[in-house]
Amino acid sequence: MTLALAHSPALAPAPVPAARVTPYLALDPTVAVRRFRMLARTLPGTAVHYAVKANPHPALLAALAGAGCRFDVASPAEVRACLAAGAVADDLVYSNPVKRRDDITESAALGVRLFVVDSPEETRKVAEAAPGSEVLCRIVTSGEGSDWPLSRKYGCSAPQAVEILTLADALGLGAAGISFHVGSQQRDPGAWASPVAAAARVFAALAGRGIRPWLLDLGGGFPAHHEGGAPPLAAYGAAVETALRRSFDDAGLPRPRTLVEPGRSVVGDAGEVVTTVVAVLHRGDTRWVYLDAGVFTGMVETLDEAIRYRLATSADGGPTGPCVLAGPTCDSADVLYEKRPVQLPLALAEGDRVVLRSAGAYSTCYSTVGFNGFDPMPTVLVSR
Amino acid sequence: MTLALAHSPALAPAPVPAARVTPYLALDPTVAVRRFRMLARTLPGTAVHYAVKANPHPALLAALAGAGCRFDVASPAEVRACLAAGAVADDLVYSNPVKRRDDITESAALGVRLFVVDSPEETRKVAEAAPGSEVLCRIVTSGEGSDWPLSRKYGCSAPQAVEILTLADALGLGAAGISFHVGSQQRDPGAWASPVAAAARVFAALAGRGIRPWLLDLGGGFPAHHEGGAPPLAAYGAAVETALRRSFDDAGLPRPRTLVEPGRSVVGDAGEVVTTVVAVLHRGDTRWVYLDAGVFTGMVETLDEAIRYRLATSADGGPTGPCVLAGPTCDSADVLYEKRPVQLPLALAEGDRVVLRSAGAYSTCYSTVGFNGFDPMPTVLVSR
Repeated sequence: MTLALAHSPALAPAPVPAARVTPYLALDPTVAVRRFRMLARTLPGTAVHYAVKANPHPALLAALAGAGCRFDVASPAEVRACLAAGAVADDLVYSNPVKRRDDITESAALGVRLFVVDSPEETRKVAEAAPGSEVLCRIVTSGEGSDWPLSRKYGCSAPQAVEILTLADALGLGAAGISFHVGSQQRDPGAWASPVAAAARVFAALAGRGIRPWLLDLGGGFPAHHEGGAPPLAAYGAAVETALRRSFDDAGLPRPRTLVEPGRSVVGDAGEVVTTVVAVLHRGDTRWVYLDAGVFTGMVETLDEAIRYRLATSADGGPTGPCVLAGPTCDSADVLYEKRPVQLPLALAEGDRVVLRSAGAYSTCYSTVGFNGFDPMPTVLVSR
Repeated sequence: MTLALAHSPALAPAPVPAARVTPYLALDPTVAVRRFRMLARTLPGTAVHYAVKANPHPALLAALAGAGCRFDVASPAEVRACLAAGAVADDLVYSNPVKRRDDITESAALGVRLFVVDSPEETRKVAEAAPGSEVLCRIVTSGEGSDWPLSRKYGCSAPQAVEILTLADALGLGAAGISFHVGSQQRDPGAWASPVAAAARVFAALAGRGIRPWLLDLGGGFPAHHEGGAPPLAAYGAAVETALRRSFDDAGLPRPRTLVEPGRSVVGDAGEVVTTVVAVLHRGDTRWVYLDAGVFTGMVETLDEAIRYRLATSADGGPTGPCVLAGPTCDSADVLYEKRPVQLPLALAEGDRVVLRSAGAYSTCYSTVGFNGFDPMPTVLVSR
């Protein structure tokens, strides 16, 4: 049953009271738990740390913690949320490579022991603010093959990582190992091969200096069910295992402990954004559909039309046609899909429901505080 | 003194307690009141309706209402905020051209009488939800010359506006007139000429049908002091007056009442975002400066590097060099300026202050609810 869920692009929408005021995120934490377990089975021996930034809802964190999931955090507030949900501080990885000094101090005081860095400056900062901690050094990847690539802002080269981890060791930190991120909603399971090989080169070089890193953070990037499809999770497990075998086992290097930081692939399919059509207008030859949710109520990942949600409507069944999909605010940037219009029923009219599927990740957390006077997107807990 | 303020690009930063926790918006409502009065003087006979969406802080709205400013609103929440600040409902224009039906009903119940439409569908909706109201029909403009053009999402052609206002009249609505928007941070005062001429054609055509529109909404677009400069406000007043004279007076058409909907030009210069440097890193040949505020704490207008804030730092005075400016979240999209790097002091280091000037508009209102566990940007009221 879990496997059927993993492979089916047609998740049944949650039963939704027709009278409920939209928009909202219908979130089912049990789906996230199933996805966590599937990832854990797919990556045997690899610890799964859910990326809290994707959706920090307390009920979600509690369900995941209860199922044995660990967490990936980016701030003291996320540390506190995980501890409140029942996680232990030793099971957290603080993956933000550039941190406020007081945030490091506070997180260390809360018990966090593992921090990601990607520069000598940040390594010194961690050594001063959280002496004796363990550090992972983040290396850069190409981001190729992902819908939301991350390559510009973080990460160093493999040779730089050798120097940074050597510095960490000299400063009394634990040179734990390497982290990387192949980009969010990564459609190519082969994307892990190159950074795993780079990590192995760093591990080998450090061993030559008498430093023994022990941990490899394989990042996130595992997909949710967005438009365009992606290989099943099992394909990612197989590709990661192949990469580890080739770069470590076959090369005679001791294989490090491994962890992953999935966000979207855990909670994406666990949520649906339920909206109502405000208007259907014809502007020239173009049909414009205006929803009561948009970029500023959380659908930020539609910027540049990067993430394409699968859509379902209360008017489904008849013929469809292209339309531009827009949000409710006065802002011209509040347009979800225009360059590549979406196909929606020709019968779609004011008052119909439009559901954005697999929208549990990077949606409510991106909502504004209330731009144009529209409330932030609320979450409604559901059970399927 | 007020004029000196208008023309000087070098507003003195507000005195800021060094110990205060950043980031925050330092907001001085008295500056917004001065800007409102300057706009009112520059556009004699034109009613000034502050666009609440730019910054809805209650103290700001109260100061503006107390000075006689009217308001432009986009939702019932903004209507209620204006009424709470002391505005009267008759002085509000509801300028969101595509509205939820229940939002129209609620706003009409609160006393709003003037709604913007841009389609036959929306005109019928207003006629049903707020019978007997007055409507302005929004026509499309090119957006040329503005930093944040608005042309895609709203507006109809002038011939369509004639039909829509004729329909409004037939449905028992008041066909009040025309609205348009030349795009936010519009650097060309001449941008008003073409839409004013188009509006005059609509007024003339309607007069031929026995319908007498009486109101012209000249929109917003008046600038704040961002990088790159813009003509003084007086140049906009002169250009608007010339456009009205040519298209109405010289054409023998009765000149309508006029209103403007400034947001940025009222509150932009009244606020500064105060941030702290989290880290200065060298990635290859590039210097990266990480601040404790970014895209997800409200600096959304830096997307595509559209709005370029003037910057001041606590390390100013020595030599400067280019750098990329990034925000504090793990998100790769949280980069303010990269394609066109900014010039900042070479001495800039962790813990220094970086102030984003003229950031009172479209900043706090765009802040997320707390992405990555970082709080929404707070506002601190100051007085210069």
